[in-house]
Amino acid sequence: MGKLLVVGSVALDTVKTPFGEAAEVLGGSATFFSTAASFFTTVDLIAVVGDDFPPQHVAFLKSRGIDLTGLERRPGATFRWQGEYTHQLNEAHTLDTKLNVFETFRPKIPNAYRSPEVLFLGNIDPELQLDVLEKLPRPPLVACDTMNFWINGKREALWRVLEKVDILIVNDGEARALGGSPNLVKVAQTVLARGPKHLIIKRGEYGVLMFNEKQVFGAPAFPLEDVRDPTGAGDTFAGGFLGYLAATGNRTNEAIKQAIIFGSVMASFTVESFSLDRLRILDYKEIHERFRAFKRLTHFEDIA
Amino acid sequence: MGKLLVVGSVALDTVKTPFGEAAEVLGGSATFFSTAASFFTTVDLIAVVGDDFPPQHVAFLKSRGIDLTGLERRPGATFRWQGEYTHQLNEAHTLDTKLNVFETFRPKIPNAYRSPEVLFLGNIDPELQLDVLEKLPRPPLVACDTMNFWINGKREALWRVLEKVDILIVNDGEARALGGSPNLVKVAQTVLARGPKHLIIKRGEYGVLMFNEKQVFGAPAFPLEDVRDPTGAGDTFAGGFLGYLAATGNRTNEAIKQAIIFGSVMASFTVESFSLDRLRILDYKEIHERFRAFKRLTHFEDIA
Repeated sequence: MGKLLVVGSVALDTVKTPFGEAAEVLGGSATFFSTAASFFTTVDLIAVVGDDFPPQHVAFLKSRGIDLTGLERRPGATFRWQGEYTHQLNEAHTLDTKLNVFETFRPKIPNAYRSPEVLFLGNIDPELQLDVLEKLPRPPLVACDTMNFWINGKREALWRVLEKVDILIVNDGEARALGGSPNLVKVAQTVLARGPKHLIIKRGEYGVLMFNEKQVFGAPAFPLEDVRDPTGAGDTFAGGFLGYLAATGNRTNEAIKQAIIFGSVMASFTVESFSLDRLRILDYKEIHERFRAFKRLTHFEDIA
Repeated sequence: MGKLLVVGSVALDTVKTPFGEAAEVLGGSATFFSTAASFFTTVDLIAVVGDDFPPQHVAFLKSRGIDLTGLERRPGATFRWQGEYTHQLNEAHTLDTKLNVFETFRPKIPNAYRSPEVLFLGNIDPELQLDVLEKLPRPPLVACDTMNFWINGKREALWRVLEKVDILIVNDGEARALGGSPNLVKVAQTVLARGPKHLIIKRGEYGVLMFNEKQVFGAPAFPLEDVRDPTGAGDTFAGGFLGYLAATGNRTNEAIKQAIIFGSVMASFTVESFSLDRLRILDYKEIHERFRAFKRLTHFEDIA
């Protein structure tokens, strides 16, 4: 069972959806990612919080077996994000972002973290992603995320990152912006020619598509009666996906497809409650049951 | 092999997309539907055209083995639709609709059409859908489509139709308007409680979802490098779906799932060219190959 290293954000979120609201709750890409991954493997986390970060959140992450040696605590306030969703739950409307201590975040890598099986670079500045890659022996599997801010503002640095990663995980808007085409097949051709072996495109309530040289794989999102808060779904997907790959050590297409389903399973749980509340009470039996439900959702019999 | 009866529109379309344009080409819901279905079974068509309808279109539909006894020809002009798509191919922008002879369309059922295995009621006025249902002995399988114009304007008549049909096939916007919820699982509960045994929700480039009492099934749309014109994709889906069900005579969940894949296969071909141009040169071997490609696209191995 290989270790998974994640570099990203830990935040306090204030979120409003048509189904309720939550103020100053645990959030951040590395938080959702590492909690989801912790159901499959051991996770080392690199992030920064302020001196106002509540100790119960540290205790929760520790309870998930996540190594917090790399969780830097600095004077100042923790990263805050405030957002709202309408009934069109696929799109978050950011009301306020206060980077606070995250603004000057420079990832430091504890010695104990130096040989992960899998590395996930959250959507931080591509220069910082490159810096992490240069400071580590090349892990067997490297994946990254990014966002439109970097696609538009630091495209060259981002392409240099992509030359060095195996898997790029982005949403459809980001994929189109990066690949310069509305057509995702063309986007995949552009991206795969520049480095990554696999491109994973998250489409929110419409599920996910994966492109590599050999094949295309698609999975719908799990249809849910109650979606309360989509925050963190994408990061949770990435955590389940890479957590499973780190745990199996397998890199075949079949393992990658199963990992995509596990990522989709984890995301489907996250959106059922605010913050990480659903993951707090989740057990592995439920994960397996939903994996099987995904099979019933998508599989059909061959024709004679 | 059971016969399939379709009631709908035959039109002349003028369409512009980022990839080209086509003026006064063959279109209409019953046209796309019956052509797609004709790859699987024999089709009887009920529609109306004006005296300006080009004879080569009649010849094409006949060449597909479609029975045109029910294609009424009346003095006046054929139904015209003019639309445009931006790079956001999922949404058509209607520039002009001229109903012409379709405005006073009253379906007449030829005697030879009176015992179809499967009946598909295209998105005509629900009062006319009811009229067709009343004039026929109840076919073993009845499916229908509708549109927002009737959902908003003739909701009560539409619910009376739905009490009498087995399968409702609509797009996601229509499903939400009919079910009164943005959540498709809740929409399905509402719709299934009112009559239909199966609800099929078409989501354009995002594929399709099917709900019934026993299960949910989802399939992504086939990722294509070249999508030239999405016009008719939904009707082509319905034609492939019901054509396969009529051909097999099988109503099990497994047959319905396979039928959804055949519908998706047919839709994926239609969007590759303008009008029905791709279907004109399609052969059954290509259909089978894409069915298998759908399996590779969506299936994954069980976990140990």
